[in-house]
Amino acid sequence: MHILITGAAGMIGRKLTARLVAEGGLNGRAIDRMTLTDIVAPEVPAAAPFPIATTASDLAAPAAAGLAINRRPEIIFHLAAIVSGEAEADFAKGYRVNFAGTRELLEAIRLAGDSYHPKFVFASSIAVFGAPFPEAISDEFFLTPLTSYGTQKAICELLLADYVRRGFLDGVGIRLPTIAVRPGKPNKAASGFFSGIIREPLAGREAVLPVSEDVRHWFASPRAAVGFLVHSAGLPREQLGARINVTMPGLSCTVGDEIAALTRVAGQNVAARIRREPDAVIEKIVAGWPQNFDARRAAALGFQAERSFDDIIRAHIEDELGGRIGA
Amino acid sequence: MHILITGAAGMIGRKLTARLVAEGGLNGRAIDRMTLTDIVAPEVPAAAPFPIATTASDLAAPAAAGLAINRRPEIIFHLAAIVSGEAEADFAKGYRVNFAGTRELLEAIRLAGDSYHPKFVFASSIAVFGAPFPEAISDEFFLTPLTSYGTQKAICELLLADYVRRGFLDGVGIRLPTIAVRPGKPNKAASGFFSGIIREPLAGREAVLPVSEDVRHWFASPRAAVGFLVHSAGLPREQLGARINVTMPGLSCTVGDEIAALTRVAGQNVAARIRREPDAVIEKIVAGWPQNFDARRAAALGFQAERSFDDIIRAHIEDELGGRIGA
Repeated sequence: MHILITGAAGMIGRKLTARLVAEGGLNGRAIDRMTLTDIVAPEVPAAAPFPIATTASDLAAPAAAGLAINRRPEIIFHLAAIVSGEAEADFAKGYRVNFAGTRELLEAIRLAGDSYHPKFVFASSIAVFGAPFPEAISDEFFLTPLTSYGTQKAICELLLADYVRRGFLDGVGIRLPTIAVRPGKPNKAASGFFSGIIREPLAGREAVLPVSEDVRHWFASPRAAVGFLVHSAGLPREQLGARINVTMPGLSCTVGDEIAALTRVAGQNVAARIRREPDAVIEKIVAGWPQNFDARRAAALGFQAERSFDDIIRAHIEDELGGRIGA
Repeated sequence: MHILITGAAGMIGRKLTARLVAEGGLNGRAIDRMTLTDIVAPEVPAAAPFPIATTASDLAAPAAAGLAINRRPEIIFHLAAIVSGEAEADFAKGYRVNFAGTRELLEAIRLAGDSYHPKFVFASSIAVFGAPFPEAISDEFFLTPLTSYGTQKAICELLLADYVRRGFLDGVGIRLPTIAVRPGKPNKAASGFFSGIIREPLAGREAVLPVSEDVRHWFASPRAAVGFLVHSAGLPREQLGARINVTMPGLSCTVGDEIAALTRVAGQNVAARIRREPDAVIEKIVAGWPQNFDARRAAALGFQAERSFDDIIRAHIEDELGGRIGA
């Protein structure tokens, strides 16, 4: 089986690649080739038991999408996207990367003309929803994105569903929760503190908390997100029906719950590294974000996420810190 | 005020043009110019009190959208689209006309670069919704189109909302009910019988009814649809808020209700011109269509539709038959 990952240089792309390389197969079938693509060529993981080709490509550019599927990958994980903040700052770039890149890839598949019929796993986002929200957002709540990023993801969900309905490919769109704990350096994303207040103290550094402890949001770990992608690739068409875009499971908890979990897992001294520094701008942005979902459809389809923030923190310590907490 | 109508050669476009020409103004402001465009040049209505330019253009073609807004119309009624059946038969053409044409027009406005900020009224459709449905589809029910046409309309709704949110223009998307009684000749549309069983008997001709009398659907007259467009153009931005796409009011009734109304308005002899000829294919298509909406948001925004099918029939007799029923 040949697997293509777009956006393979990103955090989730690298983790998905690592898992597939480690397991050597996907849903019971052996992998015999992988292609990794991103706007910069992804690194080739060491010691893969199959050939891996890496390319740098902009899927919205002429011919790029056709070239990406040149060797007819049977599974495509389409993760390539620019993030919310960048899509908001650069309107044209957001539509080019997040929308046109996806559309070009779908068109390349439709026009391949040799009975090519891959499985297409699309990484969507809870940003397709916009306030005001019900207490828990159901699987039938309407798409009212309040960002260009969310609009682009919602449009791609609709496109993918139509291509699937028309029989051009097999596909599923999964709406990822906010991923925590994100590894790496602090960034400027408004959501960065959700991860930062865990990651930084665990690494022995101070973290700033710009919102109050009663702010509630919807989370899953990077490990769970990779699990969603892998599980999606194995879902039979019949089980999904016409509604191929699914809100992934997650954990609804407050910043206070996060801090309590950190205290339980790593102790009071670690949690004491969080410094409260309220920021009205971030408070306001976050107030428009979803807080809770009723993701019963995903649960019925067999998707699984963490059930406590303690588990999310433990996954981070195991996957990123070699099991150890910084001094 | 300068008004542009795209799709102006279509049934609704012609009726909207006729109303604006007859009234000479829109929402209390005088019209001083109109531009009518369609894939074939629309007819210029006689005796207009202001200049009317007509052009044939394909908005998805290079430069066409920029040229269409060359004289900076303050109000744009964007009606141009191919119908559901054609969009389903020709995938590429549907996306070209119904999606790319709209996107080009939005991009032309965004890139005009001279503080151009028109009001954009987009004719959407209840085809953005797909079965299974609740008993009455609420204003917060999600978009799950089951046709390429419905997908294209849903994508354009999302795009328009993002362009409005970003401040590139002012806009509203209105989801039109099935329009009945459609004037003109019978056509091949699966929905044609809803109008045909009224229009043909009233004109003294036989009509075929391919479904059972308990089939329920959602209707408004052509006159009401024109009213929705006119009312939309006058809605203040604040009243709409972030959710600029609105399901229009309509009348939920069965084919049996239609026939009973025809009997009341035109008599038993006219209703006797309906011949039952069940068609399993049409029964199946229609079974996937929405039957009823809870359009309370549109009502709160001041949109008005007929409250009985008798009124829909009377509007047809007045507007199309000069008040008389055929022998």
